Amino acid sequence: MSNNKKMVDAITARDIDFAQWYTDLCLKAELMDYSEVKGFIIYRPYGYAIWESIQQDLDRRLKETGHQNVYMPLVIPESLFQKEKDHVEGFAPETAIITTTGVEDLAERLIIRPTSETLFCTHYQKIINSYRDLPKLYNQWCNIVRWEKTTRPFLRGKEFLWQEGHTVHSNEDEARKETLDILDIYKKLGKELLAIPFVTGRKTEKEKFAGAIETYSIEALMHDGQALQSGTTHYFGQEFAKAFDIKFTDENNQQQYAYQTSWGVSTRLIGAVIMVHGDDEGLVLPPYVAPIQVVIIPIQSQKEIVQKATQDLFKSLKQTGYRVLIDDSNKSAGWKFSEYEMKGVPIRIEIGPRDLENNEVTLVTRHDRKKHLMNIDQVVSSLPNILKDMHEAMYQRAVAHVEANTYQAKTYEEFKEYVKKGGYVAMSISGEDAEIQIKKDTTATARVIPFDQTFITEECPVTHQKATQTVWFARAY
Amino acid sequence: MSNNKKMVDAITARDIDFAQWYTDLCLKAELMDYSEVKGFIIYRPYGYAIWESIQQDLDRRLKETGHQNVYMPLVIPESLFQKEKDHVEGFAPETAIITTTGVEDLAERLIIRPTSETLFCTHYQKIINSYRDLPKLYNQWCNIVRWEKTTRPFLRGKEFLWQEGHTVHSNEDEARKETLDILDIYKKLGKELLAIPFVTGRKTEKEKFAGAIETYSIEALMHDGQALQSGTTHYFGQEFAKAFDIKFTDENNQQQYAYQTSWGVSTRLIGAVIMVHGDDEGLVLPPYVAPIQVVIIPIQSQKEIVQKATQDLFKSLKQTGYRVLIDDSNKSAGWKFSEYEMKGVPIRIEIGPRDLENNEVTLVTRHDRKKHLMNIDQVVSSLPNILKDMHEAMYQRAVAHVEANTYQAKTYEEFKEYVKKGGYVAMSISGEDAEIQIKKDTTATARVIPFDQTFITEECPVTHQKATQTVWFARAY
Repeated sequence: MSNNKKMVDAITARDIDFAQWYTDLCLKAELMDYSEVKGFIIYRPYGYAIWESIQQDLDRRLKETGHQNVYMPLVIPESLFQKEKDHVEGFAPETAIITTTGVEDLAERLIIRPTSETLFCTHYQKIINSYRDLPKLYNQWCNIVRWEKTTRPFLRGKEFLWQEGHTVHSNEDEARKETLDILDIYKKLGKELLAIPFVTGRKTEKEKFAGAIETYSIEALMHDGQALQSGTTHYFGQEFAKAFDIKFTDENNQQQYAYQTSWGVSTRLIGAVIMVHGDDEGLVLPPYVAPIQVVIIPIQSQKEIVQKATQDLFKSLKQTGYRVLIDDSNKSAGWKFSEYEMKGVPIRIEIGPRDLENNEVTLVTRHDRKKHLMNIDQVVSSLPNILKDMHEAMYQRAVAHVEANTYQAKTYEEFKEYVKKGGYVAMSISGEDAEIQIKKDTTATARVIPFDQTFITEECPVTHQKATQTVWFARAY
Repeated sequence: MSNNKKMVDAITARDIDFAQWYTDLCLKAELMDYSEVKGFIIYRPYGYAIWESIQQDLDRRLKETGHQNVYMPLVIPESLFQKEKDHVEGFAPETAIITTTGVEDLAERLIIRPTSETLFCTHYQKIINSYRDLPKLYNQWCNIVRWEKTTRPFLRGKEFLWQEGHTVHSNEDEARKETLDILDIYKKLGKELLAIPFVTGRKTEKEKFAGAIETYSIEALMHDGQALQSGTTHYFGQEFAKAFDIKFTDENNQQQYAYQTSWGVSTRLIGAVIMVHGDDEGLVLPPYVAPIQVVIIPIQSQKEIVQKATQDLFKSLKQTGYRVLIDDSNKSAGWKFSEYEMKGVPIRIEIGPRDLENNEVTLVTRHDRKKHLMNIDQVVSSLPNILKDMHEAMYQRAVAHVEANTYQAKTYEEFKEYVKKGGYVAMSISGEDAEIQIKKDTTATARVIPFDQTFITEECPVTHQKATQTVWFARAY
């Protein structure tokens, strides 16, 4: 392939400079471009289409479980934003603020939403009166602004796109269940659409969301061994309800504060897909999320037999519902092979006059770059299984990567060795003191407290006090 | 129905106070709510679901015609915003501006997008080099902020949701064709989804978009005889290309400026649906856009035979793909009838023990409030035609309303009479002088210059100079 690689702009090798490989790929695969304002990116058609696939899939899952979409305002009056103490402290430094218009200065400054708890709570306070009004299971798809200092395409930006769910319940059990049910939906989105095995668990007190009682997270392990927090769900208890006076009359005619949750995943998931699956040739897109699932490349496309076979196959694939593209431009076949490998298109079908003599075409699967000679009449009927196998193979490869890069540390020295290698390192620690020390020494942070709380040691290797929880650490994006 | 009406909060009668009727309905049908910031509304589930129906339908039409979705930043640096002179003059007074963050003041003020021409142009300048890169047919779904003084739910707000298409072409013909093709797509969206007959035509120089060479519009006539501009398409020629230096190398290796268009429809369409179809009982939603297409109301729902029939019908309707709801709450049947009439649900099915003895149910169509006794086994198979007929009847009723309220004025006195009645008034005028005088005298504005340019008089009844164009006027929202 070295010859072909020269024909498209080279991408930095993944193991030489992963960060540069990532940025090269984002730009060269035309997923995004930079705008005139640092930290605000342009989602180009190929990148935005990945987000649309994610939206469509997750939106269906949320609607099937009774959630309803709404849309709240972009702006939050400063006074409203300050109602929940922990929440405002967490977000205030990252806010962008409208102070004026083309005509006159505003009487009250308006915060661009960095998240919309305060807006949902104000609305819920107005519309919830009785237990009959509960639960409320609202979600919104929108843009968010957080004034981050260091930004990277999809991973961290001053603006990003996401969904944020905000639910209200009449009792603690139901709200806690919602927090975990959504975590499970996110995990399934990873397994069934993105081919990513998310590790799930609770966040430590130090890492939890500003204003939450508990935060849960889905974490993905990138190829370079760093973790990426890919989504979170929060249990709020009655904290926001008390700050915003969200009360309801229960079955016994008593006034009670409501129980709430919130949860979200964002365009950061695009970054996860790139960094979990990509290789030195470029993107490797899981087949169900790929904007183009099949590219057909006719060889000697001036020949009528090739043209006809190309058009026929294109039509039947399109009719069957696949996202399919023909490239019959006058660029060389080698250039095209490299280009669509770089773009991570799951299936490439080469249609040439020689294969057609035997009624055959060459089908190349992107994830393993294997060639398959196949009867042209069997392509459409074979495709469901090929895509299914490809998805499963990509998922299992990612599972194997997590398993090969997850360690248990019995001593702090071991811990430091493992962190250097990259991957998740589990250790039983005493608490926040240990967490702070670890971050200082190694830059690794607590990713999750896994649901399985088997202890590795009785004593915390960092503080030498009694271990109280087993935590998975990693360096993270 | 007077008895039932008392059971739900009364809506102001449509012919007594149309404006109040509209606001009552927006709130009581739970389409929206006001937020803490004037002019920013909350799209509640029932209102947002109408927008989702519109999005889904239009997005499909745009993708079928080769358009691709992208996402541009929320913010525009002030210097960039000022690049096209007419454009900035048109929008500057309506802009909201970020000047500071939670940490420090910004070096350059950032405009919240009131429309994204400047952002698309900057990107196009970077990515377009050759005629091979053209056309570019981009669209985005996003939120928009315009600091309007007087606001009304869905019709005019400080924030609204829309799609904005921005396309680039290598020649004038293709760009002009795109401008009209999209106008046609909008018109079809009206006819096939919203049951609204849009009147189309070109805007006068006075009414056209800031920076456009030509603006075309879809106009809808509300029940009260006022017009609502419901969407626009703009032909830019090379004006923006020159301001933003968007050049390409043509087939003869010559550098040329590109030709551009832009176009959009917004959540204002929700307002059009309400005001075209609604009646004194409430909303009347066209069946294909309705969030709930069928509501099933069991009568004596404690009876097992009723419960079973209700569940069975619900399941088969749902499986067939209809948006269907059961209301088996303990509210009275009369209250429920009024409630779902107010919410404009196209089909109500009443399932009661007496009808069930004959294996029948009562089906009520919202648009004409007629009752149909129907064999329960025929409901699912009959529904496609019932909905089709209902859609067609609503469309034809709206067409009849336009026809009954469109006038031709031969004198200025006639014109004033017609404007008072409400509706479109066509008159052949000399130009902008007449337009300004008409607005001053009658508050009516030029809606469109229709494609059919038959002259009514040779002389302009306002200025007594030679008439140069026939224009449709109306009072407008």
